[in-house]
Amino acid sequence: MYMNFEDQLRDFSRQVKFKANFGELSPFKNIVISGMGGSGIAGSIFSEIYDKAPVQVVSDYGLPSYADRDTLFVGISYSGNTEETVAATKEAMRRGCQVRLITSGGELSELGAETVVVPKGYQPRAALGYLIKPFLSTFITSDEAQYDRISRLLSDMDTNNSNEKDVAGKIFGRRSIPYVLGYPPFRWVAYRWKTQFNENSKILAFSAYFPELDHNDAIPFKHTYGKENFSFLVFGGSTGQIEKRVRFTSEITSTEYITIQPKGDTVLEKLFYLVHAGDYVSYHLGNMRKIDPEDVSVLTELKERLKS
Amino acid sequence: MYMNFEDQLRDFSRQVKFKANFGELSPFKNIVISGMGGSGIAGSIFSEIYDKAPVQVVSDYGLPSYADRDTLFVGISYSGNTEETVAATKEAMRRGCQVRLITSGGELSELGAETVVVPKGYQPRAALGYLIKPFLSTFITSDEAQYDRISRLLSDMDTNNSNEKDVAGKIFGRRSIPYVLGYPPFRWVAYRWKTQFNENSKILAFSAYFPELDHNDAIPFKHTYGKENFSFLVFGGSTGQIEKRVRFTSEITSTEYITIQPKGDTVLEKLFYLVHAGDYVSYHLGNMRKIDPEDVSVLTELKERLKS
Repeated sequence: MYMNFEDQLRDFSRQVKFKANFGELSPFKNIVISGMGGSGIAGSIFSEIYDKAPVQVVSDYGLPSYADRDTLFVGISYSGNTEETVAATKEAMRRGCQVRLITSGGELSELGAETVVVPKGYQPRAALGYLIKPFLSTFITSDEAQYDRISRLLSDMDTNNSNEKDVAGKIFGRRSIPYVLGYPPFRWVAYRWKTQFNENSKILAFSAYFPELDHNDAIPFKHTYGKENFSFLVFGGSTGQIEKRVRFTSEITSTEYITIQPKGDTVLEKLFYLVHAGDYVSYHLGNMRKIDPEDVSVLTELKERLKS
Repeated sequence: MYMNFEDQLRDFSRQVKFKANFGELSPFKNIVISGMGGSGIAGSIFSEIYDKAPVQVVSDYGLPSYADRDTLFVGISYSGNTEETVAATKEAMRRGCQVRLITSGGELSELGAETVVVPKGYQPRAALGYLIKPFLSTFITSDEAQYDRISRLLSDMDTNNSNEKDVAGKIFGRRSIPYVLGYPPFRWVAYRWKTQFNENSKILAFSAYFPELDHNDAIPFKHTYGKENFSFLVFGGSTGQIEKRVRFTSEITSTEYITIQPKGDTVLEKLFYLVHAGDYVSYHLGNMRKIDPEDVSVLTELKERLKS
């Protein structure tokens, strides 16, 4: 059984204090992460803040042919039964990759690979703290004081998320489609917002990021039809050329943004703050729409039919 | 001066016969490609059909810290003056990466690195054949008979693109936003369609891909508001679990697709066919909207302001 969904959201501040890492690792030349949807996003967000080795996140059934004994393979599936990740993990074991798994159980936990077991009872997207922490503890920082600070930032938002509710109200008031504009190293956080709108609010949503979006997305901002159906959300706190791009793009194309201002001092603090802000905006928007954030009937029906 | 834009489109069949490769390469452990927008997409499409080494496409000013003497760095900027790519290339040279460049001139051509020089006179997005061919000749196949077959497929479409015009008519008839659904190895081709709509038709457009989209995008397909503002385009020709996902997702969420059926026997033939179909759909849609596909005033104004 799942916890109440708001309790799951409020659990994020506890999850970032989850003490888990991948243990002793042999040297490796590259990292391949397999994970889909709410599980895979942990790998994608990690891939953007770690750059000491190539990291490829695979969202498919297979593995790249270069994956071999010199590869650290991490399979992430909250349920442990995601068909794409189970297939990729078996292939990684066959090839002799160094394998680590993150799961709460299921088929993945029975493959005999070294596994970080995370608690059951969450929606995968509400278990992000558990799913990403082993990466952070192993590769970014093992200083738990950092995670304590992050935890306080997150629980402050649990106490007061009226800003996030206001943003949800603006989107809902216009029955608009969110178009979330991020920038490095928060590109995948922007994508996380998109997926949270998809799942928690059950609405279409899209993401893009500076500077790349200036070469594609922004060109029609001035000319397109249908722009009035979208709400443009942008992450604040950028600097240098990116800050200029954010500002000039708005001015030149007459595009109004709703700005999401991160709190925190370090990149990691800002990152978690922005993630959690997206949790709350999408959650409040779901409430305003009177939908059940836990309704994943589309996914369940799809899985059933794929098995037959 | 640019050629007439339709002539640029029709040049694609000639471009795939462009004889160029990266020459002798020393051994490398990974590939880092820097490129933005219409230039970067050549690297992204390549990265999806090559998997003998990790490939990371960087759409930003910097380089990952792992990039070193064991890295093959390829900088792609059609103009040669893209600020992000120029900055990344200088950094790659500083770090002792093995450097190759693809450009028609500009600052990039003056850095003293080994360079594939491509013809001037095109919009970067209309020079994709030139920009991707060095990757294909070097890493995928040097069999020119393959490219001759691709060339014939493309010029057949130049002669008759009434199917593509019909698709454009459907999108334009509803003043809808294209939402292009791809699948591996055509995920980046779906993204190319999105960017071609952005640039050639000057409209917002989005892309996603199976199986990942079933974990995110598809969940609200059944519940969202605003769905009537979109046209869902899907690439045909999938098989196995992906084919099932495409079909079941449509049925379960009551989502009607416009299917784009690729021609050709090999992956490479289908890939180029699908790319060119997107060129024509976006081009016809731009004509129907009576916009100038070559108007990149937003980008030009942005570049001017970023310099000051």
